Amino acid sequence: MSRELMAVRLCSILPSTSLSFPSHFTSPVTSTRVRSLKPHIRATSSPAMEMHGSGRDKFLEYPFVSAPHRDMMIDLISMVEDRLGSQLLPCSLPIDAQYCQNENGTAQASLHIRSGHGSSLVDFILGSWLHCKLPTGASLNITSLLAYLNLSTDAPNFVAEVIQGSPTSLVFLLDLPPRKDLVMHPDYLQTFYENTQLDTHRQMLAKLPEVQPYISSSLYLRHYFSPTAILIRIEVKADESGQMEDIIKSHLNPIAKEVLRIWLDHCACGGREVGEEEKTYLKKRDNMMKNKSIEIDLGSNFPRLFGPEVANRVLGAIREVYNV
Amino acid sequence: MSRELMAVRLCSILPSTSLSFPSHFTSPVTSTRVRSLKPHIRATSSPAMEMHGSGRDKFLEYPFVSAPHRDMMIDLISMVEDRLGSQLLPCSLPIDAQYCQNENGTAQASLHIRSGHGSSLVDFILGSWLHCKLPTGASLNITSLLAYLNLSTDAPNFVAEVIQGSPTSLVFLLDLPPRKDLVMHPDYLQTFYENTQLDTHRQMLAKLPEVQPYISSSLYLRHYFSPTAILIRIEVKADESGQMEDIIKSHLNPIAKEVLRIWLDHCACGGREVGEEEKTYLKKRDNMMKNKSIEIDLGSNFPRLFGPEVANRVLGAIREVYNV
Repeated sequence: MSRELMAVRLCSILPSTSLSFPSHFTSPVTSTRVRSLKPHIRATSSPAMEMHGSGRDKFLEYPFVSAPHRDMMIDLISMVEDRLGSQLLPCSLPIDAQYCQNENGTAQASLHIRSGHGSSLVDFILGSWLHCKLPTGASLNITSLLAYLNLSTDAPNFVAEVIQGSPTSLVFLLDLPPRKDLVMHPDYLQTFYENTQLDTHRQMLAKLPEVQPYISSSLYLRHYFSPTAILIRIEVKADESGQMEDIIKSHLNPIAKEVLRIWLDHCACGGREVGEEEKTYLKKRDNMMKNKSIEIDLGSNFPRLFGPEVANRVLGAIREVYNV
Repeated sequence: MSRELMAVRLCSILPSTSLSFPSHFTSPVTSTRVRSLKPHIRATSSPAMEMHGSGRDKFLEYPFVSAPHRDMMIDLISMVEDRLGSQLLPCSLPIDAQYCQNENGTAQASLHIRSGHGSSLVDFILGSWLHCKLPTGASLNITSLLAYLNLSTDAPNFVAEVIQGSPTSLVFLLDLPPRKDLVMHPDYLQTFYENTQLDTHRQMLAKLPEVQPYISSSLYLRHYFSPTAILIRIEVKADESGQMEDIIKSHLNPIAKEVLRIWLDHCACGGREVGEEEKTYLKKRDNMMKNKSIEIDLGSNFPRLFGPEVANRVLGAIREVYNV
């Protein structure tokens, strides 16, 4: 399978990750204190490290991607935890669903999920990375940060994902996927997408000569994203992987942070009344989005990469957190 | 205003057309017989011409576009009338809403709408063209064919539109806009978009080197279209307008006809049960689509091009047919 096809198949709302966790794991449930992730990963001798357990640290290592790629993901996670950390429970995934690798070691993945407290608008935050060696000898790396809100609000979710098929080629997805039908609710479109001027960021990236639109092979995913979604493919010349790192550092990183800031300000921290009837609809739609995302992304990829046993274990753990 | 900006602003679900009709108009209501349009326009001495009235003929002249562009639109109208003609009433728009021009003659438009009989699935078919001279000296031509279905079915509508800002540049929109929220109804996505393999046509056009994705400035319209929508900009070199005509003839025309055939087979002629509760939702959504499309497209463009009096007259006539 070509790298591109592989990337297309794995391209997801959901990360393609799973697990069988190292025995030195310390349960994250033992910690109720929540701190920014950034200091942890950059000062691994911090006492906070043990409190959160090595599953968390393993996740934050992002061991297979370039420094600018890793920095971007850690910056995003830090922003989320700085603003929402006090509302989040520690990761309660089973150990063997937090990290896994396949039998011959060609595929590895890490998954970290933190649910929101009862009083929070956050349903859960999901971070992940996946690494696998392709038959061509190249590596595929996928890193994701997703944030789902609960039924106390109808505000959009957040998704950031990088699918890097080689040092010179990647797909970047950044969006606030809507939780309502935008054709039926133009006021929702205005509140979250027009008034926030989200499209300016998409337009800025589209001007870079290395950027092309990315069109998912899944028709469902194409419609899942908002009209301001950043769905792009970036290609640089074969001998210019440094240029890719520059693009991540100078363009993707600041734009991802700005879009996340908009989400934190307008969605995760701003209350919106949701009536009972609307809540019933919202629940159905949220569940449909979750179910389809698992089906499209993980349903076929997980068993192929990690075998049926690991796949079942991880999908089961995810479904439990997703509550579907 | 640049041609491009003008085209973007006029880009629409709805055509930007309106009217003050020549006095030799013969009411199309005098004819109950419906025949293919193609023979009319290609043999203007046909007796059928009078039966349908000159408003219809004026519309079918497409006087300002290239032969391949005109042929494509007439081919599409012929296909619709061949299959659905017996279900359609003659155009009942007021004469002065079927054709109009502005005071200094720099803008002209023609509009033709036929509603479906009570037993048909068709709500109405709308054809139009608009021509205006731009301050730069260039011409802008927009031709459209829209088909809306009624509440007896939830099947998608049909839209084909060409926005030609110069002989070497155009925007082409071709789609079956969904009438349901595809995130909530993946079965609908499968029935009308996956099973019909609509995306193959989009993919074929995307391979042409002259083709770029077209992204509407309206976030609402971006979400209005389906995930298989053909939304493209075609540019050829300044001295190669013949190449544009070849592309219309060899690529746009056959693909538009194939997509229309899919719509005729699977949407306009295939029944689907719609429950009462669902019908209430469908009506709300259809009305929202119609209202927004009028607002986005015609609300500002019509007064600017034709003055407030003509704009009010035409918008009133359209709203009456749209029943919103």
